[in-house]
Amino acid sequence: METFRSLAQMKEWSRAQITRGETIGFVPTMGYLHEGHLGLMRRARSENSRVIASIFVNPTQFGRNEDFGSYPRDPESDSLKCRQAEVDVLFMPETQDVYNHEFQTYVDVERVSKPLCGKSRPGHFRGVATVVLKLFNMVYPSSAYFGAKDYQQLQVIRSMVKDLNLDVRIVSCPTLREDDGLAMSSRNSYLAPAERAQAVCLFQALQISGELFRNGEKEPMKYIEAMSGRIIREPDADPDYISLVHPETLEDLNVVDESCLAVLAVRIGKTRLIDNMLFEGRA
Amino acid sequence: METFRSLAQMKEWSRAQITRGETIGFVPTMGYLHEGHLGLMRRARSENSRVIASIFVNPTQFGRNEDFGSYPRDPESDSLKCRQAEVDVLFMPETQDVYNHEFQTYVDVERVSKPLCGKSRPGHFRGVATVVLKLFNMVYPSSAYFGAKDYQQLQVIRSMVKDLNLDVRIVSCPTLREDDGLAMSSRNSYLAPAERAQAVCLFQALQISGELFRNGEKEPMKYIEAMSGRIIREPDADPDYISLVHPETLEDLNVVDESCLAVLAVRIGKTRLIDNMLFEGRA
Repeated sequence: METFRSLAQMKEWSRAQITRGETIGFVPTMGYLHEGHLGLMRRARSENSRVIASIFVNPTQFGRNEDFGSYPRDPESDSLKCRQAEVDVLFMPETQDVYNHEFQTYVDVERVSKPLCGKSRPGHFRGVATVVLKLFNMVYPSSAYFGAKDYQQLQVIRSMVKDLNLDVRIVSCPTLREDDGLAMSSRNSYLAPAERAQAVCLFQALQISGELFRNGEKEPMKYIEAMSGRIIREPDADPDYISLVHPETLEDLNVVDESCLAVLAVRIGKTRLIDNMLFEGRA
Repeated sequence: METFRSLAQMKEWSRAQITRGETIGFVPTMGYLHEGHLGLMRRARSENSRVIASIFVNPTQFGRNEDFGSYPRDPESDSLKCRQAEVDVLFMPETQDVYNHEFQTYVDVERVSKPLCGKSRPGHFRGVATVVLKLFNMVYPSSAYFGAKDYQQLQVIRSMVKDLNLDVRIVSCPTLREDDGLAMSSRNSYLAPAERAQAVCLFQALQISGELFRNGEKEPMKYIEAMSGRIIREPDADPDYISLVHPETLEDLNVVDESCLAVLAVRIGKTRLIDNMLFEGRA
């Protein structure tokens, strides 16, 4: 495995691969890798002749009072994991190279960035879209791999790719979960043991929604009330949003027909966790 | 010369050229071509093995009360001119293919879009940056050619290319002028004969600034007053802005040192004209 920090070196390597007819699978991450990330790498490995993973904690997607400074980092362990996942290149650019001091260009995916996390994290998806486009322009991926846990992020990137006529296939991979159902996330490392035990409430709330869906429930408020009921049973859980939305537009549903996305963000103590489940295939 | 309307066809052609090692020079236009455009095409022809010109009147760069609907169009004459300029491909995409009904992604180049035309045309440069990025992603240019008459547009595009890590060389070509000095522009066709005679005031105001610069004048207000004096002599001239700015940041200058950009927008009757001159090389 090669490790590049230089943008020019990354571009040169990728260009050479493409000229030779190789396909590039790309897994952009913020590091502190867990099984979810490694699943993306393995999927990329199985579908491409070359695999690039990037680790870049992107400052423009963090709000002023968010955890950019304290976001967990462990480059040595990450590097080992990438090597084990048979990544060809680990790209770890420096912040000042990605954003020079005159930087002023942002990508806005307007509608799909607004609800859900977009409400409580203004500017977050602008930062995500911008850095993903920049990374695409350094790595030249044929396909890029994202986890379904960050469902809204996935929809933002899909819209961007379509709207800006990019030639990247966006691949969504299922959320990986701990044994009790908690969605894997680098931020789970923030949880104290008592918080960790309560954090399962997100998954369990989503499961309750799944049951309602399979029972034919059409009234969104029924789902939301049931999920809220499960969340507020935990003493340290403070819901940011609990919603039932259209899987493509992310707009609130008035009635639950053939498909829906149950999606929620909950603070457990100081740690903000998100999760979602897609329900479909009902007549 | 080939003419493509299909985005897929355009992409396929360009990709094939690049695979063969050709270089692509790209001249994006809104049509109603004049000598200024043809100069860009000739420059592209001299520097590249393949030349693509596009004609697309881009709705997202026009404000609600602007002239999108009435913008002059003459595709047959344009096509002939492109052929004569030895363009290889004329790309004329359809509006609904460039912007499908779910379109929602925009590129914002923040600081450099704000002053000058950005003030009187909010959203204009957002539309310009967005469509230029989209066209780049359809055409894969090695180099793209823009006229210096639209100086702020050029700076917006240069910043975007740098900030989004694009691999396109941006080439600025000098403003072409009519015999009396009026900068060539498709919008000149709006001018009634009496307005056409008055329109020379933009060029003459800039020339007055040039004289001040060569005489060592350091006080920006002196330039602005002199230019305003020349403009308001014309009965149908109504200045939108008259400014002296830094050639890169486009910020107002406090003092004129080694270089400056004199830049102005003036309505002649209902027609809004812009022009600029760069002065440099003073000790």
